[in-house]
Amino acid sequence: MLHQVFHELTIATRGRGLLEFTGQLTAWIAENNLRSGLLTLHLRHTSASLLIQENADPDVRRDLDAFFARLVRDGDPLFRHTAEGDDDMPAHVRTALTAVNLSVPVRDGRLALGTWQGIYLWEHRTRPHVRQVALHFIGE
Amino acid sequence: MLHQVFHELTIATRGRGLLEFTGQLTAWIAENNLRSGLLTLHLRHTSASLLIQENADPDVRRDLDAFFARLVRDGDPLFRHTAEGDDDMPAHVRTALTAVNLSVPVRDGRLALGTWQGIYLWEHRTRPHVRQVALHFIGE
Amino acid sequence: MLHQVFHELTIATRGRGLLEFTGQLTAWIAENNLRSGLLTLHLRHTSASLLIQENADPDVRRDLDAFFARLVRDGDPLFRHTAEGDDDMPAHVRTALTAVNLSVPVRDGRLALGTWQGIYLWEHRTRPHVRQVALHFIGE
Repeated sequence: MLHQVFHELTIATRGRGLLEFTGQLTAWIAENNLRSGLLTLHLRHTSASLLIQENADPDVRRDLDAFFARLVRDGDPLFRHTAEGDDDMPAHVRTALTAVNLSVPVRDGRLALGTWQGIYLWEHRTRPHVRQVALHFIGE
Repeated sequence: MLHQVFHELTIATRGRGLLEFTGQLTAWIAENNLRSGLLTLHLRHTSASLLIQENADPDVRRDLDAFFARLVRDGDPLFRHTAEGDDDMPAHVRTALTAVNLSVPVRDGRLALGTWQGIYLWEHRTRPHVRQVALHFIGE
Repeated sequence: MLHQVFHELTIATRGRGLLEFTGQLTAWIAENNLRSGLLTLHLRHTSASLLIQENADPDVRRDLDAFFARLVRDGDPLFRHTAEGDDDMPAHVRTALTAVNLSVPVRDGRLALGTWQGIYLWEHRTRPHVRQVALHFIGE
């Protein structure tokens, strides 16, 4: 029977970079015996993103972060919103260039991810932060 | 009992820039007595975006727009699609770099937004436009 | 009555560029007699994107690709992940700058797209690839 399940994940980051948490989602799906439906993730912050990316070669994460750091320079004099430091406004821009929502189907108790896809929290601030991800499942 | 509700919001923009409409969503949720579920927003245009961003310091919106204006230059000679002016193709590129869909859980009658998150329509054309946002709610 | 339908589309690309597949979605909706609900698309790859963009002037697609090719240079010495060639890491970056998920309401048996919106698979690799798009519908 169709039903909904809500949850909130807390993820502690280690500062700027990509942190995979696919395993936490897989565990939550198994614990709740969710078989088929739609999982939506919403990150409740404006200076970090949710991203689905390659989970094989760690250089992909390093290169993603290096590209974004060059594209959106910390301390760029263009920015006025600098209250929390040089990485404050770049974190907002990096978030705008990516996403804070993801929606992934669940079939036969598994996320419909591709072989090489992992789900990441991308911390854009240089210092560690504690981040909240709201989860919503609807299905069977 | 699980059910669906559809609606369409009409938002008049004042030209390029970020326009918050979280209040219109909150009002619609209250009017329809939506308690828990998933709200999806789809913007029916290709030269404006939907964005979740900081709703405290207005400099954040100013800086976001300034960054995108520098990244995607109006009148860039790279572009061939210039039928509607210098800001025509940049508006499509800015839309591709952001998003036209958002999905946010609703719990206890409230959007599961973070403390500093607001929902914005980002107009990318320099002149004012009238924009349509299709809403879909599924839940209780 | 609310129910779910799953499907998987296979799309063969011709190398880098935007390929519209709105027609395949429209056909699937009609075949399954889906009347109202939410359609979610999830692309199971990390070097291609899903994009909703203008479906009128083909120059828009050409310009989008030209802009992204200039923004994220093939062979950029910044990148370490080059195992599959000069376009390998740029394809991951272009995917991060866009999206692999889309959610579009369905009303009266039709996708709630705007007049000029089409749904595209954006291949970021230079060579042709076969891509899988997981579809999930919930509604009536």
